[in-house]
Amino acid sequence: MSKQIIGILGGMGPDATVDLYNKIIVETRRKGAARDQDHIEVIISSVPQTPDRTEAILHGGAVPAPELIRSAQRLERAGADFLVIACITAHHFIGEVSASVGIPLLDAVALTAAHIAARYPLAARAGILATDGTLATRLFHSALEKHGIEPLEPSLETQRSVMTALYGSEGLKSVAPSQSAIDLIRAAAAELVERGAQVVIAGCTEIPLAFNNAAAELEVPLVDATSVLAQAAVERALGLEREAKDAT
Amino acid sequence: MSKQIIGILGGMGPDATVDLYNKIIVETRRKGAARDQDHIEVIISSVPQTPDRTEAILHGGAVPAPELIRSAQRLERAGADFLVIACITAHHFIGEVSASVGIPLLDAVALTAAHIAARYPLAARAGILATDGTLATRLFHSALEKHGIEPLEPSLETQRSVMTALYGSEGLKSVAPSQSAIDLIRAAAAELVERGAQVVIAGCTEIPLAFNNAAAELEVPLVDATSVLAQAAVERALGLEREAKDAT
Repeated sequence: MSKQIIGILGGMGPDATVDLYNKIIVETRRKGAARDQDHIEVIISSVPQTPDRTEAILHGGAVPAPELIRSAQRLERAGADFLVIACITAHHFIGEVSASVGIPLLDAVALTAAHIAARYPLAARAGILATDGTLATRLFHSALEKHGIEPLEPSLETQRSVMTALYGSEGLKSVAPSQSAIDLIRAAAAELVERGAQVVIAGCTEIPLAFNNAAAELEVPLVDATSVLAQAAVERALGLEREAKDAT
Repeated sequence: MSKQIIGILGGMGPDATVDLYNKIIVETRRKGAARDQDHIEVIISSVPQTPDRTEAILHGGAVPAPELIRSAQRLERAGADFLVIACITAHHFIGEVSASVGIPLLDAVALTAAHIAARYPLAARAGILATDGTLATRLFHSALEKHGIEPLEPSLETQRSVMTALYGSEGLKSVAPSQSAIDLIRAAAAELVERGAQVVIAGCTEIPLAFNNAAAELEVPLVDATSVLAQAAVERALGLEREAKDAT
């Protein structure tokens, strides 16, 4: 039985929330959960009406913070012991959201950088595959730099192809992604590796879809920020944090 | 933007909750949602610790109603406008749960029977593929009988193979279901059709997994109770109920 209840701020978009929720279930099973009753209590507030994060950051669109705060406070009142946000770009507003509640809020970006530093201590450069919005926040950049890891983003031209591969009509966010969208993401990852990345961060929910088997298709490890967040949330909920730290 | 907020009582098990949540998203997209902001606000209370429903019904195990009521009241307080339960067997306790809150609770079993009566008015017999627990509640039986439809369950021997196909070590509820589990479910469906079923109800989350393309593989329509519930919830949340009724 879980010791703590996870609260998920979701809906940005809804599919990313399904992805995080599913990864929490898979990770709990990996930690030994066999019956339904071994799984973790989770409360999800999915508010797709939250204004677009990238629009707000890049073009001064409507501010998403009030909806994020509404979700956070709803989850705290409903009994969540700690919170996670199922959207990397929304982490730009993590300070305001965190200040609005009395319970901890895990930071997926900081956790991903810490995971890379602990797991791949020799990695000096990390490539970042993410949306324009996430890159503009420089969230991963500063988190990596805190660990002495140099952040590497795709060239302007390649980043444009990453956005096409994600948002195009047959992109990874569509119902039926095309092989060419998959190839664009793989080419962007290969470019980052060629330029010296010793790890590549999948900083957007759909990126891992381009790699059926990350280890086999990429010369360097692919670190999925959503999986890192799911793992940290499960360890905290099950009270395994100290063991996890001892294990690294 | 959704007009009403859906509250989901989940965690029974967690995968069934992912399935319902995902079907709500797919159904909303089918109704025209293109951007994140077109999707429906959803609150999920996933309480996997809820005692096993089948155990309680068949063997007098711990009673799940208190946990169901706790979830329902949590969702009502958090702002849900109406509730759904992501577990067919738990519908056995729907009366108690419904009485504990002041908001409506959709009944997936009644909706499924009504859907069959409206969509297949000539169907006189409906086969039921579900767990022993769900069959023991006779929920589908009485819901179908209210519409003058004769319920048909698998023979005792076939029902045993349905349970093996669901719960066996390589069953549909496992990480990697075997072809033989899939074949067992298909054989059970075929038996029901042979005995006169003009519709087969997938009354358990995992049943549809055995049919890649239901229409192509089964001579009669397969009605997935989870999809029927997702559709009803989306129509209610978007305020399309009257239009939906006009369309039938």
